[in-house]
Order: sequence, then structure tokens, then C-alpha cells
Amino acid sequence: MEDIRKYLDAERGTFERDLCQLLAIPSVAADSKYHPDVRRAADWVAGQFQAMGLKTEKIETIGQPLIYAESPAIPGAPTVLVYGHYDVQPADPLNEWVTPPFEPTIRNGNVYARGATDDKGQMLTHVLSTRAWLKTRGKLPVQLKFVIEGEEEVGSKGIYDYLKQPGVTDKLKSDIVVISDTSQFAPGQPAITYGLRGIAYFEIRLTGPKQDLHSGTFGGAVTNPLNALASLLHALRDANGRVQVPGFYDDVLALSDRERKQFAALPFSDESFKEQLGVAGLYGEKDFSTLERRWARPTFDVHGLWGGYQGEGGKTVLPAKAGAKFSFRLVPNQDPKKIAASLETFLKERLPPGITMELIYMSGAQGCVVPLESPFMAAAEQAIETGFGKRPVFIREGGSIPIVTNFKQQLGVDTLLLGWGLDDDNTHSPNEKFNLGDFHRGICASAALWEEIAKIKR
Amino acid sequence: MEDIRKYLDAERGTFERDLCQLLAIPSVAADSKYHPDVRRAADWVAGQFQAMGLKTEKIETIGQPLIYAESPAIPGAPTVLVYGHYDVQPADPLNEWVTPPFEPTIRNGNVYARGATDDKGQMLTHVLSTRAWLKTRGKLPVQLKFVIEGEEEVGSKGIYDYLKQPGVTDKLKSDIVVISDTSQFAPGQPAITYGLRGIAYFEIRLTGPKQDLHSGTFGGAVTNPLNALASLLHALRDANGRVQVPGFYDDVLALSDRERKQFAALPFSDESFKEQLGVAGLYGEKDFSTLERRWARPTFDVHGLWGGYQGEGGKTVLPAKAGAKFSFRLVPNQDPKKIAASLETFLKERLPPGITMELIYMSGAQGCVVPLESPFMAAAEQAIETGFGKRPVFIREGGSIPIVTNFKQQLGVDTLLLGWGLDDDNTHSPNEKFNLGDFHRGICASAALWEEIAKIKR
Repeated sequence: MEDIRKYLDAERGTFERDLCQLLAIPSVAADSKYHPDVRRAADWVAGQFQAMGLKTEKIETIGQPLIYAESPAIPGAPTVLVYGHYDVQPADPLNEWVTPPFEPTIRNGNVYARGATDDKGQMLTHVLSTRAWLKTRGKLPVQLKFVIEGEEEVGSKGIYDYLKQPGVTDKLKSDIVVISDTSQFAPGQPAITYGLRGIAYFEIRLTGPKQDLHSGTFGGAVTNPLNALASLLHALRDANGRVQVPGFYDDVLALSDRERKQFAALPFSDESFKEQLGVAGLYGEKDFSTLERRWARPTFDVHGLWGGYQGEGGKTVLPAKAGAKFSFRLVPNQDPKKIAASLETFLKERLPPGITMELIYMSGAQGCVVPLESPFMAAAEQAIETGFGKRPVFIREGGSIPIVTNFKQQLGVDTLLLGWGLDDDNTHSPNEKFNLGDFHRGICASAALWEEIAKIKR
Repeated sequence: MEDIRKYLDAERGTFERDLCQLLAIPSVAADSKYHPDVRRAADWVAGQFQAMGLKTEKIETIGQPLIYAESPAIPGAPTVLVYGHYDVQPADPLNEWVTPPFEPTIRNGNVYARGATDDKGQMLTHVLSTRAWLKTRGKLPVQLKFVIEGEEEVGSKGIYDYLKQPGVTDKLKSDIVVISDTSQFAPGQPAITYGLRGIAYFEIRLTGPKQDLHSGTFGGAVTNPLNALASLLHALRDANGRVQVPGFYDDVLALSDRERKQFAALPFSDESFKEQLGVAGLYGEKDFSTLERRWARPTFDVHGLWGGYQGEGGKTVLPAKAGAKFSFRLVPNQDPKKIAASLETFLKERLPPGITMELIYMSGAQGCVVPLESPFMAAAEQAIETGFGKRPVFIREGGSIPIVTNFKQQLGVDTLLLGWGLDDDNTHSPNEKFNLGDFHRGICASAALWEEIAKIKR
């Protein structure tokens, strides 16, 4: 790999410029006013593949377009499907960004921008390692297929629908999927993520009186939708942090003793974690460690609340409406649809008089665990050591990458989750960043991965 | 009063034009961007008094200015202090107004505008009845003192401070206060309000992690401020609608059996009330009727909630901050400051790990009851019969007019609460209105009131 390493070293500046170009496009899939930018990001990604001579397609879906690219088949060598996404989370609250979210800025060896690590920066490592192979050797040691989507942050409807279309299973046929959309365990300690949580995401809208009322004249006579909302959200969890929706824990895949021991052996301290987050105390489900709660236990989190008067000063209003967005993080085996149905019954039974509810099931995904014993896992372990100079640890991750479950179900193929990010990258928060050292190490690990996988006989 | 009645009939158009002029000024005291308009409204009111030849002052305070005016003393006749306010509630949500809140519009015999009934329209009835006396007879039968403030909707700090200044007690010395800022019992059934609720209004701000976090990576590890907010607000009330703050009910002045019977005898039906509000059911403290709960029982209402992502689509954020505005309506004898202290302890004891709280006591006022037996009450009863053609009933009102308690405490004088509004006037809500028939009947009743009070010997 000396020739490729040399190329990577020489091209560092070019790679960073390419990354900043993509980060400057505000491809926020959740907000329709950014949809033209979402398409611009798609076209930018397609342009990268075309420029390196890959067969490239822009596939229209029921949502945002997919960018598909493939290199020629290599007889006797495996085929790798690389997945990533070019859309990003909304950037609010804007006033908390040190530099604007869509003006990528390099400070202290990091690039700051929305999408820096999730997932534009990480996704690009595989695009650029492919460019490196093609520019250096003229061909790849394995067949690569790329599918890069633009709706990961809003439920991936387009790609899920596409995966069910006739012929798609054949087109995407591969031996392993590679995704970089997770984190290292710690700075300098790379990791392979073998388990992910699922999610069931909801919006609740409560309506009380037909219009806002004066809380003096009417307070005490009718249910206030804001009070009702607080009580309903409270009811979803008990004092020990256990979700109260009936049947919620029925299908939970328990952690094995071996996993609990592995987690406990990782260099993680509640004290430094508290310091990292700036909190005086941690909180969660009783009888589980912090890593267990983050990686392998289901949760309930409210993501947004609204209703009534939010302005300056006081307003004595009894508002007609209230709403919230919330989700449950799920663990392997829990079924988001089953939980959605049970949740609706639970909330309906607790609706106070005079309140009507609309419960919207916005998106869902199952959690998953990927088998640790497979030659692809060993190949990834070796490639990461090549790129990062350190063997990875095996961890889980609390976030959801529902596409992993979909690839398993639709294509019958497992996924290598190779995360180049860090826990303090501020994904989904102001001042998202990606360490440029990790960016380049990720490109190198990816280049090595194609070589390691090529050694696996089909 | 024939001459005055004739004048009132002839001037109806002028009175309505005057009202619309004042309603067109967006004097929202809660929002500093409207403060120049608040002062414009003050000047407009001062101009009315000057035009009718009253001694008029614009009194600067620590907040918005007071407009003070007085007519000459009438030896042997009582002095009446008329109080009102020229400021209004915020107009949000703007998109629910049929016509813009500060473009007064007449439809179906009502004028629609923010402040139409609360309190510009009602306050003006006394200004215009005074004009009628002066234009018709050249003098008033009693001495009138007007004090019209501009911060009633934000806690009346300016006038409270002014009332404590040296000399003010003498300046405002009077035998009775008259305020029209309440409602009739029903259309065609005027009322005198002899009791008001107090209020203790708060803002709570919770802070968790030092910044927004990804709910996948961090959910389950730390307290989510939105979840914490829901639980704290829920904890403030039990399932029977009882406030849980320790000592909250200790000082509550219970309703007498006579009052409960009087309330029960009023023509009020839960069924038509539900229809008016557009709710399928009513809700409140157990074992009390709807009127009792609205008029004479304390409550807890959330007025606004915020935090996290409120935009389109979903965002899996574990937000750093959450907040709410809420208040307790209080009944006579409850002390808002005592309750504020107990509340703070109650909430602090329940703060979950990793959450810090800022509790802001925004404003407070004690409730009050005014004695039914007094010659002024009888005078008001007669004047209302003259103006409205029907004897009033005696009711309470759930809202707070904290100035009534202040006048009692600072000036030692009781207040006649003569409400010309209606329950469906949408005070504090979109499409606030004031019935123009009631506006004119209110002016006539006010004109008659000066005559009736003049009959009371000092």
C-alpha cells in the first residue's frame, strides 16, 4: 500500500477542500425550504463518482434521490456495498454556533460544520479511498457499490421504498455492507460497532378548548392542554426510568454476561463523562451502567415541546393546543410498530376530559446486533489497525442506523460499522465537528479495507 | 337624566370612533418593541381628559406612565376614584385573528380588536360618561379622580410603586373606587363582581447538559430537561386537581354555604358551557361545581412550554434547556409570596440529577372579596338597572385585578367592580371583542352612577 499511502499524503489538502465544498451545502432534509440544497448535495456526490470514472446513476425515489455508483466486478473477490448519506440534521439553535453551520471552518485540527461527522465527512472517506486506488492503481481489488441517500435524518423513506422495487436486490447484491456513521470509542481508540439501537419516533398534538382562553376566567373549569401534555409525558416513565407502555420490555434482547463484562472493561468513567457533558449527575434506568444504558437499554426522550405563550413577559393564557415530539430508543428484538400500537392505547386511556389527541408515528427502525465472528470483521479489524495504528475495540452504539436492519432483511447481508467520529463531535447539536486527523486516518483505513477484503475468497 | 340620555344617544357614533382610535394603538406592555405605542395610548387618554377640561397629569413611574385627571371637589358629595388600564395583552397567535388585532373592525354589533373589552372599551365608558355630564350640565355631581395605568397586563409595577410614594394617598383620597374590567354574568344579565382571585405567576428554566446532545448516543445516560420539565409540572397537581405545594390550601377562605347556594341558583349549565368552549368534558378540582372552581378555588395552569426542536419533521435531540411559564390562581387570604417560597422548595426537592433550575417569580397578587353591604353597592345596583334595564346579580370572577387589593391596602378604600364585558369576549385570546350595545349601556350606567353616588351623604 506504499503507493496509495503516498497518494493519500499528497492529496490531504485536496481532500479537505472537497469535504468543505460538500459541507457548505445546507442539505437539511427535515425542512422543505432546504430541499433544493438537498438535491445540490446529491449532484455533488454524483459528480465525485463520475469524475473517477465509476458507472454512476441518480436514482429518483418517492423522496430524495439516491446516488448509486459501481466499479467493475472482480472475479473471485467479494463485492462491498458502501452506504452513506448526504443529508444533515437541522442546524438550530443557530445562535449557539461559533461559526455558521454551513460555512465550514477549520479550528484546532477540526472542521466545524453541520454534517461534518454525520455523515458527510465519514461517508467521503470511502469515496476518497476509492479515488486513491483508482488514481494510483487504475483499478480496485474488490467490486465496490455505493448507495448514498439524502433522507437518513428524516426516516429514509426513499431508500426503503427503493429496496423493495423489483431488481434492486440483484443490483445491490453484495457480500458485506460498509457504513461509517458511528464513533470511535475514544480519541485514539478506534472501534467497530457491532450493535445499534432502534427507534420509534412520534409527534403528539393535543387540543382542548376551541380557542385560547383567559386563565383567570376559565382556569379550573377545563383541562389545560399544556398541563395534560406534561402529565401524559410524565406517565410514560416511572421514577426508576422504566418506560410504562405495556409490553415495552417483552421483546428486549438482554445483554449477555460476556457483553456486560466487556463493557465494564472499557476505559470509561462516569466522572469524566459528567465533566464532558457539563452535568452534576447522571440519570437513567436503575441497575444498569452508563454504557449499558446508552448502548443496550431502551429509553424515552422528549425532543421538543410547544404550546401557549413563549415570548417576553407573562401571558395568562389557557391555550387551546399543545404538542411534543418524542421517541423511544429501542434495542434488538423490540418492534417499533408493536410499541406504537401499545403507546396509542396507553395514551388514549389517560387522556383527561375535554382533550383530543392526534398521535403521529413519524418513523421507526429496529435495533440490531451484527455477528462478531466473520472474516469481514477480521478484515475490518486489520484495516483499522493499518489506518489508525491501533487495534479497534468492539462496542455498541446508542443511535439508530435503521438501514442496517433493512439491508439485513432485504439483501440478507451484514454490515460493518466502522466509525471515525468522536463522542464529542456534537452530532445533532450546534458546533458539529470532525477531526481532520481522523478524516485522513479513515481514508487510509478504508483504502486498506478494500485490500483486506480482497484477501477473502468468495 | 333625560338631558344626559339624549346626549348619549346623539353621540353614539362619536363614542365608537373614539373607541376605535384607541384600539388601533398596539399598546402591548409585555413586549418592549411596542413600548412607544404604549406611550402613544397614554397620551391619547390624557388628551381625552384635557379636552373636557379636567386637571390632567402624565405621571412618570418606574414603568409606564400613569394618566391622572380630576374634576373639582363637590362639597358634601363623595369622591370616586376611577381606575382602568390602557395597555393590552399580546395578540399572538396572530394567524387566528379574523381581522388584524389592531385594526378595529365592527361585525354583528361587536367591535373586534385586542383590548376591546380588556380594558380600553370598558375603561372608556367612564371617560365618556364624564364627558356627557360636563357637556350637558357643565359640571359633575361628585368629584371624580381618574388613574389610568399602562402595565396592568404585566404586573402593574409602576402604579404599585407610585401608590407608596409620599403624598399619593392624599392625592388619590376617595370614598370608593370604580373599575370596569370584568364581565356581565351573561348577555342581558349584568352583574356586580364582589370577589376576585389572586395570582402567583412564574417562569421556570431548566438546564441539563452544557449543550444539545444526540438522543441516540446519549439517551439513557443523563436527565433530559424536557422530560424533567414534564415531570415537575405534573407533580404540581394530583389526579383530583389538587395543587401539591405544601401549605397551598392552608389560608384558603372557604366559600360560605350562602355563597355556594347563590352560585348554584345562577342560570349556568355545564352543558352549554362545554358547547361554548368546544370541549367534550370539563375538568377541575373534585367536589366543587364549575362556577365554584372558576371563581373561588385556586388552580394551577401552564401558560407556555418550550424547548428542543419545534420545526417540521423529526430531530433526535436531547436538548440542553427547557422552560415554562405557569401560574396559580389564588383565592382570598392566600399569600402569593408564601406560595412562591413553598413552591421553590417543592421543586428543588424534586429536581432530578444533572438538572439545574432557575425559578422566576414574575408577579403576584392577592385575591379579594368586597363587602356586599354598603351604600355604594346599592348605588351601583341602581345605576346598572338604569343603564342596562335589568338589576344585576352578585358574582365573583376568576381573574385577578390585583390593584383592588392594593387600593384597599394603600388607600383603605373598597372597589365596585362593574363589568360590561361578556364571557365570550375572547380576552387574552384571538378575536377579542366588545359588544357595542354594552359599550353604550355601560356609558349610561356610568353616567347614572355618578348621580346615584351623589345621593350618598358623606
